[in-house]
Amino acid sequence: MKKIMNAPDAFVAESLEGLVRAHEGLVTFGAGRTFIRRRDLAPGKVAVISGGGAGHEPLHSGFVGRGMLDAACTGHVFTSPTPDQIVAAMDETDTGAGCLLVVKNYDGDVMNFEMAAEMAASRHAIDTVIVEDDAATGPSLRSRGRRGIAGTVVVEKILGAAAEQGSNLAALKTLGDDLNRRIRSMGVALRGTTVPENARETFSLGPDEMEIGVGIHGEPGLERTRFAGANEIIRLLGERILAEFPSDVAEGGTARPLLIVNGFGGTPPIELYLAQGIAHRFFENHGVVPARTLTGTFVTSLDMAGLSITLALLDEVQFKLWCAPVATPCLSW
Amino acid sequence: MKKIMNAPDAFVAESLEGLVRAHEGLVTFGAGRTFIRRRDLAPGKVAVISGGGAGHEPLHSGFVGRGMLDAACTGHVFTSPTPDQIVAAMDETDTGAGCLLVVKNYDGDVMNFEMAAEMAASRHAIDTVIVEDDAATGPSLRSRGRRGIAGTVVVEKILGAAAEQGSNLAALKTLGDDLNRRIRSMGVALRGTTVPENARETFSLGPDEMEIGVGIHGEPGLERTRFAGANEIIRLLGERILAEFPSDVAEGGTARPLLIVNGFGGTPPIELYLAQGIAHRFFENHGVVPARTLTGTFVTSLDMAGLSITLALLDEVQFKLWCAPVATPCLSW
Repeated sequence: MKKIMNAPDAFVAESLEGLVRAHEGLVTFGAGRTFIRRRDLAPGKVAVISGGGAGHEPLHSGFVGRGMLDAACTGHVFTSPTPDQIVAAMDETDTGAGCLLVVKNYDGDVMNFEMAAEMAASRHAIDTVIVEDDAATGPSLRSRGRRGIAGTVVVEKILGAAAEQGSNLAALKTLGDDLNRRIRSMGVALRGTTVPENARETFSLGPDEMEIGVGIHGEPGLERTRFAGANEIIRLLGERILAEFPSDVAEGGTARPLLIVNGFGGTPPIELYLAQGIAHRFFENHGVVPARTLTGTFVTSLDMAGLSITLALLDEVQFKLWCAPVATPCLSW
Repeated sequence: MKKIMNAPDAFVAESLEGLVRAHEGLVTFGAGRTFIRRRDLAPGKVAVISGGGAGHEPLHSGFVGRGMLDAACTGHVFTSPTPDQIVAAMDETDTGAGCLLVVKNYDGDVMNFEMAAEMAASRHAIDTVIVEDDAATGPSLRSRGRRGIAGTVVVEKILGAAAEQGSNLAALKTLGDDLNRRIRSMGVALRGTTVPENARETFSLGPDEMEIGVGIHGEPGLERTRFAGANEIIRLLGERILAEFPSDVAEGGTARPLLIVNGFGGTPPIELYLAQGIAHRFFENHGVVPARTLTGTFVTSLDMAGLSITLALLDEVQFKLWCAPVATPCLSW
């Protein structure tokens, strides 16, 4: 295992330190360095707070700033942050309008954010949006529903923009739950990764294999198949994505589709843009014309090779919120 | 070799196609699809044109747009574009004030850009800036001087901003040559890459090895050493970078240092930000306090694992040009 790292137990802290130093105008450490927060809070705005295991950077810490998150709590690699971290973030960033917690749907994350919400319930108005966009994991397969993967960026961006524009906690909760029905993602891995703490490979693929429907913690995918060309990979992901929208969303018109090609950490821009072009054409051929795209490395699994496709079938209001100005370390326009 | 790709001979074209589709508001294909150009040219502005082999994306095609490049010519992977491509780009983007060619210092690139300049000399006023920032390759080692690596982003950004603000060809040439003395970079590879066309690995490193001073085409580095921790890697790169500035630049005050941590394609944000934090501290400890930083994937070697550090000791005017607005597919603020 070769990583740009000093020691495994300093890996996450040293990376967060670098992020804060590089973007001091936008973010700072919160109390006890247990979370990263927006430097200049906006009084009276709902605090949008997220977090999760490390290893998915720039999610979530790179998305703290104006128009997106107010705080991000980071755990060890692929390990939920503790309830204490989340409570500390709420205590420091709630300026009176309450806290919206954005949580990827994994048992550990859901449990710790729930526990934090209980612990802080007497001091803060709190609501929670659970992100469930992974088309590879249906509600029928897992009691807790779909996993949250790269669609989380869309949920955090749109909720952050709405909060910035003054939406209250109830409106944000409604918006977040609606977004969950409108976003589907699916990933493919060409190579696994190695977790620093235990130096163990998450999974191992042969030279002719790929893992379709893979998660972002090295979870098994939907199936391991023979490695294929880009057209075939995009077809596999795209067909499943289209099939997994609720029927009213799929049939209700595709006002403003947003298409994201997200690299998992080990896949370079030349491959991501190739996938973007093919995915764009694929969805167009299926009657879904992307109104906006995003291509890059946003939700990673350390340095896993591969990518995910996210399609968000936004309504006009949601699309405008996506396009609204944002100023964070790793997403800005 | 697993890449998100259909066929090796369509790899570059399909990726450029994806880039153009994703950023239609900013860029478009030039004549015969042999280059990518800014969609809306600015009449009377010097055309800033660059290019090189594919495999370094987002360099150069991702940096076409307002405030940076007017055109980028892309060759096959790690292969110079042809003189014809470069001439076509000049013919289409020169709106009267001439063309500035920005060329990374490799024999093939220098030769083809020179040939293009000769071919088009009767129609265009042309000047050329050769980028030479690699601290691992001194003028003493190679007759043609240092290689051009990630510092190319700085040269393209600052020249692009100056051109946007109305600098003429002579002023841009002077500015570019001065920048060359003020920018030093050096890289380390943890894993080589595989060129699609021949399915051959550029170099192979053992599990305990790293390549210091590596180029971006899989060229050998300065030395192959035992893999080390991040502090030690940054020290190796940083000391050499500081030592390789001309003495008047090193001693002439460090008005506005810019620090870039650039991933080579296979290294994820968590590692890049860790390196950014350590490099920031390293240079501070040596009396060079970064005034601005950039962290991400800008100049790649396909999916090679590793990174480079770039330090640019800019004067006040150059720093302002760096900070000036830019709107390209892969660099914007």
